[in-house]
Amino acid sequence: MDRIFGEITGIPEGSEFENRFYLSQYGIHRPLQAGISGSQTEGADSIVLSGGYEDDEDNGDEIIYTGHGGRSQVTGLQVSDQTLSRQNLALALNCQRGLPVRVIRGYNHNSPYSPSVGYRYDGLYRVDSYWREKGLSGFFVWRFRLIKIKPLSDANQVSEEQPTYGQTQRVDTSVSRIVRDSQLSRFIKELYGYHCQVCQHTIETNIGPYAEAAHIRPLGRPHDGPDVLTNLLCLCPNHHVMFDFGGFSIADDLSLLGVKGKLYNHKSHVVGIEYLQYHRQHFFSREVGV
Amino acid sequence: MDRIFGEITGIPEGSEFENRFYLSQYGIHRPLQAGISGSQTEGADSIVLSGGYEDDEDNGDEIIYTGHGGRSQVTGLQVSDQTLSRQNLALALNCQRGLPVRVIRGYNHNSPYSPSVGYRYDGLYRVDSYWREKGLSGFFVWRFRLIKIKPLSDANQVSEEQPTYGQTQRVDTSVSRIVRDSQLSRFIKELYGYHCQVCQHTIETNIGPYAEAAHIRPLGRPHDGPDVLTNLLCLCPNHHVMFDFGGFSIADDLSLLGVKGKLYNHKSHVVGIEYLQYHRQHFFSREVGV
Repeated sequence: MDRIFGEITGIPEGSEFENRFYLSQYGIHRPLQAGISGSQTEGADSIVLSGGYEDDEDNGDEIIYTGHGGRSQVTGLQVSDQTLSRQNLALALNCQRGLPVRVIRGYNHNSPYSPSVGYRYDGLYRVDSYWREKGLSGFFVWRFRLIKIKPLSDANQVSEEQPTYGQTQRVDTSVSRIVRDSQLSRFIKELYGYHCQVCQHTIETNIGPYAEAAHIRPLGRPHDGPDVLTNLLCLCPNHHVMFDFGGFSIADDLSLLGVKGKLYNHKSHVVGIEYLQYHRQHFFSREVGV
Repeated sequence: MDRIFGEITGIPEGSEFENRFYLSQYGIHRPLQAGISGSQTEGADSIVLSGGYEDDEDNGDEIIYTGHGGRSQVTGLQVSDQTLSRQNLALALNCQRGLPVRVIRGYNHNSPYSPSVGYRYDGLYRVDSYWREKGLSGFFVWRFRLIKIKPLSDANQVSEEQPTYGQTQRVDTSVSRIVRDSQLSRFIKELYGYHCQVCQHTIETNIGPYAEAAHIRPLGRPHDGPDVLTNLLCLCPNHHVMFDFGGFSIADDLSLLGVKGKLYNHKSHVVGIEYLQYHRQHFFSREVGV
């Protein structure tokens, strides 16, 4: 059965379960023993907080969670470095891909938020960041910061970035470049092996390659471009920024305008000419002919 | 007097003004005639909606606004293409830098949201996007989509991206890479001429060069890095992603770890060794020695 990310239909936040067996049966957390459900390719769909590391934190909407590995089964002490692999890699993938993880708190989880008995599904969290720390043992552990996902008031609203701003000349604002990671985006990135169609480079991170899927005709209003493969490109962040802000564009024959070369195109990926035209017309102001 | 972005102290949203003179006196919109207040280097701090182009839209929290230029003063018709310069460039800068713009609606603005007399300050908007369109005249105009900035419930909260998610296997989520554009960030990018300290490239867009300022020790919890120049780097988006996700790091002597070469360092920019150490320890897991 395919892994399900996000809510399980019919099981709302706050649902209580007597034991791990029921958590598994209802699909909330399928492994019967492991604390993290996930894989190194898909990410982590759920985690159970039940005991854990000493310096884990549970602040309700924010959880600092320590990864797995390197502990002696006999003494419970850390005896080697944790690695960014297996379940740890799964959680790190959630971070890069923006995937939610279902969080379940168990009675044996040391926190004011724990249920007194059994297990409780406490909703969806996102993995805000991950990093490595040297514990008191002298060995490295991987740590993850999880943040509760609050539902949007308008369920259909694309979440808009809320800049912060000052009342004086000093302005601190945030520009958010929203990188959508839908199934189509994942597909196109895998099709191109995370290589940019413009420069053929791939970005290497500590958990593997990274690329961004760009809609040629933007999704948002008022452009209302469709979320289809023919309207997608696989780009590195640099060329994604350049493309969105009209630094280059693409001709109907896939030659590049504004930069040298030609778009690399996988034989099974058809690029929609109507979307290229839209982009040239609306974003690229240095073109020679439309 | 320096340009003020954001709220003007003491002038809340909804404040009404009899005429353009008072708008100017109170600092809400300083020019007496021009519709946009701004500059090609700083961005636009305010705009007045008062008449405009036929296909402008005003949907309250969303405004589609047409730029300036190319109109005959005699006939009012479009007689040449608009260019991405002057006030149009100013608004485009707001988009790239995440700067808010004060929006004032005038009695002569054709919209259900207009005041019946005078002018009303209707709060802060951000410039979500900008693009070019061919009008009925056959000439190009630049268009801007403005979105109302809603105040955060917790004023101190760094805005967290809210992913959207589905209830089935198909998950559509957004990963937001928040690019902070504080004054310090602007300063460091200008210091390096928008060139990446790792690869020396700059990203060219339709309004000039683009780069990102990266905090070496992250600002957010729990890393709590400071927002100071010694904790900042000027990077291209590719190297920013790589850096944040541990694809490379930097040794105390500024040689690069994980990629070839050495960090380019401007003589007046001191890079904090303690922050480099923090990054190596917490994010770069391929290092040889800390």
